[in-house]
Amino acid sequence: MLTYCIRRQLSVFSRVNCNISPLHELLQFCKQYGKSSDGGSDPASGMLQVLQRRFFIPPDHHHAVSLLKGKTCAYGPLGVDLKRNMLEQWWSAVVRSRPQVFGISTLHGVGAKGAGEVEDLLNQRDLNKEELGERASELLRQRHPFRTSLLQGALAQYVPSLELTNRKLPFGLAETGLCYRPEDDESDAIGCSSEVTEASLTWFCSPRTSSQWLDYWTRHRLQWWRKFALGPTDFSVCDVRDEELNKSAFRGVKVLYQFPWGTETLETLWMLGDAELLRNHTGKQAELQCRDGKKIVLPHILALSANVDRGVLAVLFNSLQHIQKVDSKQRLHQRTVLKLHPTLAPVKVALDMGKGSTSELRQVCEGLLHEFLEVGISAWPGYMDTTQSSMDKLHTKYDEMGVLFTVMVGENTLENGLLLVRNRDTTIRETMHISEIRQFILKYISTAENV
Amino acid sequence: MLTYCIRRQLSVFSRVNCNISPLHELLQFCKQYGKSSDGGSDPASGMLQVLQRRFFIPPDHHHAVSLLKGKTCAYGPLGVDLKRNMLEQWWSAVVRSRPQVFGISTLHGVGAKGAGEVEDLLNQRDLNKEELGERASELLRQRHPFRTSLLQGALAQYVPSLELTNRKLPFGLAETGLCYRPEDDESDAIGCSSEVTEASLTWFCSPRTSSQWLDYWTRHRLQWWRKFALGPTDFSVCDVRDEELNKSAFRGVKVLYQFPWGTETLETLWMLGDAELLRNHTGKQAELQCRDGKKIVLPHILALSANVDRGVLAVLFNSLQHIQKVDSKQRLHQRTVLKLHPTLAPVKVALDMGKGSTSELRQVCEGLLHEFLEVGISAWPGYMDTTQSSMDKLHTKYDEMGVLFTVMVGENTLENGLLLVRNRDTTIRETMHISEIRQFILKYISTAENV
Repeated sequence: MLTYCIRRQLSVFSRVNCNISPLHELLQFCKQYGKSSDGGSDPASGMLQVLQRRFFIPPDHHHAVSLLKGKTCAYGPLGVDLKRNMLEQWWSAVVRSRPQVFGISTLHGVGAKGAGEVEDLLNQRDLNKEELGERASELLRQRHPFRTSLLQGALAQYVPSLELTNRKLPFGLAETGLCYRPEDDESDAIGCSSEVTEASLTWFCSPRTSSQWLDYWTRHRLQWWRKFALGPTDFSVCDVRDEELNKSAFRGVKVLYQFPWGTETLETLWMLGDAELLRNHTGKQAELQCRDGKKIVLPHILALSANVDRGVLAVLFNSLQHIQKVDSKQRLHQRTVLKLHPTLAPVKVALDMGKGSTSELRQVCEGLLHEFLEVGISAWPGYMDTTQSSMDKLHTKYDEMGVLFTVMVGENTLENGLLLVRNRDTTIRETMHISEIRQFILKYISTAENV
Repeated sequence: MLTYCIRRQLSVFSRVNCNISPLHELLQFCKQYGKSSDGGSDPASGMLQVLQRRFFIPPDHHHAVSLLKGKTCAYGPLGVDLKRNMLEQWWSAVVRSRPQVFGISTLHGVGAKGAGEVEDLLNQRDLNKEELGERASELLRQRHPFRTSLLQGALAQYVPSLELTNRKLPFGLAETGLCYRPEDDESDAIGCSSEVTEASLTWFCSPRTSSQWLDYWTRHRLQWWRKFALGPTDFSVCDVRDEELNKSAFRGVKVLYQFPWGTETLETLWMLGDAELLRNHTGKQAELQCRDGKKIVLPHILALSANVDRGVLAVLFNSLQHIQKVDSKQRLHQRTVLKLHPTLAPVKVALDMGKGSTSELRQVCEGLLHEFLEVGISAWPGYMDTTQSSMDKLHTKYDEMGVLFTVMVGENTLENGLLLVRNRDTTIRETMHISEIRQFILKYISTAENV
């Protein structure tokens, strides 16, 4: 048997999926407002069809548009689990494994000042109706009562954190959560969401080490993204050019992903100095000071912020494989597989019934399902779907869902406890005893995690 | 040695903690607007002091007020982990262990319609300035661009979910996330947040079973809350009285917690019939229908919604013990312990150094810390705090943080690998070999989980 593996060969891919016009339309729309317009939109529309068909996102177009634009969208059950797994991995790598990083959680709202301002304006007597109208509209447009980044929250928690860390540098404050990006006016027009899920680390270090720390975190973040990648070279980093730096940043680095339509930023790392800290502090400067060994210093800040929604999209694009196989009779078979990393895959096992006594097989499936769920292996109860489906169709479905293993319970299982277990990546089927399967899958996942 | 255990004996408790006036003030304020005004405010202020001192919440008063009022506040590192653990337990009990419940994630914003409405108003020519001002203020007050419950999101995902479930009842859609409660006008005045973290299950079932399902979920939810309780009887359920039911609800149940100042609602369960589903659907009614065995029916809805922030507060109050001990010399010792359930406790182990060669002991601590973190045991690096502190002070601190075990690395450890391990709940210290400690703690937690 001969296997061709064509990764990101877009021409082949797009030919298969170019028959759906509404998606094509909205992608044209996206492209119009997107950062780059090279590359076709069809690989993206093919990807989105898979995501909609397989419960990653709901079928409404605006969710697909939002995701393509790097915004949060409503997620279906598989999308929820993929995003949860990514956030969990980020938290584990950045917070849980580091004694000097502390998780925080801050409010989404940034005060109701906006509302008061508008009311003040409406009460001004020397404005005529037109002026009032204009000024009120202006204020309303500018009014962002919700946070646009997680940095401000971390800066507000800096002083209370000093007791925790004994004023010793370096340390970090981490948070994951929703931010609002209403500045993107075109988004509204196409029904795109203005919400983004961010994962942010604010790192406080001595001025003399801030450049080294930026290099350290750049390496760490690139490695983290690549850890889950099938094609690691699609993830890269680049320095932000001087003209792109805002006034409080000395240096900046971006983690990029090469999407079919161009390169997009997944994460930014800014070296901010101490300006932000001073701007946000009304008390004495001494209250901000920390210890760097025996010296007393005002810390410098590195602000890391990843767009988790765009990260989800990057991981999905990166793991999509379109495989062609020629069987022994020279027939061509095409296979679309989401080869998601075992730790990220939303469904680890699908459980299905073969032929045989339905009620007995069902009981075995139910028992096995609960055994999986008990040890935290997310399992898909395929046996509950009573619509007839061929094995080929079942495998197509599970491959597109990124399911690691398909376990078949059949007559054989009732006789001798043997299951048929199919591996997503190798497509090899092997028999395994029902008593071994849990341990086998747990080991498979933990091995992949520690590579 | 004689031990008195005085749980919720408020008189003793309040005498210890009544010396802080700003907190007292704000609690008076809260009480004024709170649901009930019986019970003193001192036990609450004592609790809040512990939470502020031990990094559960930041020291600013408005965070404490928000939490007392059942709203989200900024959380410090320990608060973040406690809330994460609770959300994780909820997700595991409601979603992950049930094949017929699917996790979803919907947008926080509910469209930017409000802004347009205001602009329309400002463009109306037949209004005079005063009318314009009034109407605009009114609109601004009413403008809630963000979701106030998770139910609407679940209803919007109902039709896309039908393919997933093969139109078979019952099934559920679950989501956890932030909701906004701006209706509470007094909150703004005292700087209280208008954000609440909710955990919501929308359960679709056949009309004939909806009452049984309400009973089932009521039992489930009460059991879940009580599972983590030191004093389970403080959690209770009650039926919502007919006059409190809104027009679309047939029945309602509340899960309550008995706080020192009165009873508050942690969770509501509404039996909503099919009205909400029909109201939110513009297509044919047949698109909403499901299978109940062989019958085709329009499902009824149960809407469960828990206030996770108030839940965090309830769990904290429930786990706080004030213990008096009389030692062999008839001296009275007082001890405040947060006896948080082992699965919820934000820190499982604190690691500290005894006397001896600092650099060598430190190395052992660092190695052990990473061993703990590797297997997901959250550990507190007490050895990094170089300020001198007596053992008594250390235990007071860790007891108030709810740390399950305090592990001391000393000279002994360097010689024969033995550690001194103190149990939070029994205060008993035992020696244990360094090679056994990880397994011991993992087993302790998993045993508590499965009780």
